[in-house]
Amino acid sequence: MIENESLGQRLAAGDRGALARLISWAENGDPRFASALAPVWARVGRAWRNGVTGPPGAGKSTLVNALAGALRGADKRVGILAVDPTSPFTGGALLGDRIRMEERSSDAGVFIRSMASRGSHGGLSRAAVDACDAMDIAGIDEILLETVGVGQAEFDVMSAVDTVVVVLCPGAGDGVQAMKAGILEVADVLVVNKSDVAGADRLVLDLEESVAARLGRAREAKGGWKAPVVAASAALGRNIDGLVGAIAAHRAHLERCGLARARRERRLEQVRRVMAQHLDDVLWGAGGVREAAERDLAAGVPPYDVASRLAARVLRGATESSRA
Amino acid sequence: MIENESLGQRLAAGDRGALARLISWAENGDPRFASALAPVWARVGRAWRNGVTGPPGAGKSTLVNALAGALRGADKRVGILAVDPTSPFTGGALLGDRIRMEERSSDAGVFIRSMASRGSHGGLSRAAVDACDAMDIAGIDEILLETVGVGQAEFDVMSAVDTVVVVLCPGAGDGVQAMKAGILEVADVLVVNKSDVAGADRLVLDLEESVAARLGRAREAKGGWKAPVVAASAALGRNIDGLVGAIAAHRAHLERCGLARARRERRLEQVRRVMAQHLDDVLWGAGGVREAAERDLAAGVPPYDVASRLAARVLRGATESSRA
Repeated sequence: MIENESLGQRLAAGDRGALARLISWAENGDPRFASALAPVWARVGRAWRNGVTGPPGAGKSTLVNALAGALRGADKRVGILAVDPTSPFTGGALLGDRIRMEERSSDAGVFIRSMASRGSHGGLSRAAVDACDAMDIAGIDEILLETVGVGQAEFDVMSAVDTVVVVLCPGAGDGVQAMKAGILEVADVLVVNKSDVAGADRLVLDLEESVAARLGRAREAKGGWKAPVVAASAALGRNIDGLVGAIAAHRAHLERCGLARARRERRLEQVRRVMAQHLDDVLWGAGGVREAAERDLAAGVPPYDVASRLAARVLRGATESSRA
Repeated sequence: MIENESLGQRLAAGDRGALARLISWAENGDPRFASALAPVWARVGRAWRNGVTGPPGAGKSTLVNALAGALRGADKRVGILAVDPTSPFTGGALLGDRIRMEERSSDAGVFIRSMASRGSHGGLSRAAVDACDAMDIAGIDEILLETVGVGQAEFDVMSAVDTVVVVLCPGAGDGVQAMKAGILEVADVLVVNKSDVAGADRLVLDLEESVAARLGRAREAKGGWKAPVVAASAALGRNIDGLVGAIAAHRAHLERCGLARARRERRLEQVRRVMAQHLDDVLWGAGGVREAAERDLAAGVPPYDVASRLAARVLRGATESSRA
């Protein structure tokens, strides 16, 4: 515990070795992560958390590299976290992308890390939040959280950041139509990357129309924010400043209204997930409810009834206890 | 409740309307599902549950159609459930595939249904299990559960069936290498579809080698079962009988050893998930722990500590209650 506390202090002093070790603990769900961060927890909350997501081939990694360069130019400390919800069918991280990222790793103002899932539901978004907290405490100003894939896990990861940047590129064809609903729901800033490629202008207009059409409830959810559409080319270095500006505008909007509440809601969500995991571990560990469940199932009780019986027993106890 | 009970009776009598309604309830997480099934729960367990999965473009839907045809030829009642873990980026089900499936829907011995996710973690595998239970009680002999995508959600769905058929096709290139580990972990039967296409023989050999090399712990997990590799062409109707035979061999293997235990474990897993959802609903609903969590967070308590405090309170109560 003393060692963990000093690791927390080293982290708060910006020690990269401490940061690397803590992110590994986060990735592995190591319980030492929480105890190391506890003594320096008050320092969390200064980093801006950007998420960069979009379909494969849109150029997310190149854009993250370009963004990191622009932010370094403004003297920001940058942390890049590439998260890859390993699919059982597609294997791990796209190494080529990661290698391109390493170009920046000789710069002491950039911390780069990739992180794969350990397969469990929600495990990756928990680990990503933890890694962001560690980078935040380590004094990183701008976190760039990049997701590799396009599924529910990535979506969850994106729900844990301040600004979601969705990257698209022309030529994706019909896919864009199908994507739109989900993308407009999640995007704070839309980037049409590869703006030099044919069809980019059309895609920009198309997205702008969709954003404009998206009124009412969906807009309300973002506090009236209308996601700008930025045409850029990460590979050619075109209009990266425009993207930086769009992110800054979204940040200013949130800081005027909604940031504190959004962050509080995200912390509650984190507590909820961690608590659920904890309860599950204890209830299904040694001395837990497994035997009672097996008995009920063997007696022919339908699984939903077994589950509610067991849950009621836990909850009845909790209520009696809090009344006592 | 009386109405639900009679719906259960109609289901057990094989009423397709009752089955359709119950699957809709399963899809929507409607609590009436559980109460409708409870009075006829004893009838569950007679259907064989086949999962068909694999990367996009492997021809899963065509293969499912061909399998359904072969099983109908053997006078089996067939239920097809196509599950689509809707990605926020890719939209819903591939309609073309679904339309091809509908070819069979004029046959009263085939029940076809597709099901999309409602976005929540684990929600789709819960719904898929429920739908299979309903089809099982309705007297369907062979369930073909097809997944559309390739992520964690599909993987979870596959963990709820008796026989997992993984469909691949030649020409997927490097992907196959990356896929192998995950595929061999999950597959009970491997199909090289489009066996007329160049590279099919090579892929068969390649997979057979990988299966043979996969000794020890991984094999143990499947009770010594060595997944056969079946070359077939669903589109040309080639060797569908070979696939039916491979599935039958796996079934015979499981029935000799491990089936009862595997099914018990899956029911326990279901109870565990349903119970976790139930606890989460109650604990974070009105009168739950949200206010306490907000108070602690506002006081600067780190989220992991907030979560363990709350979990400890729930569990302490449960223990005291069971002692009383």
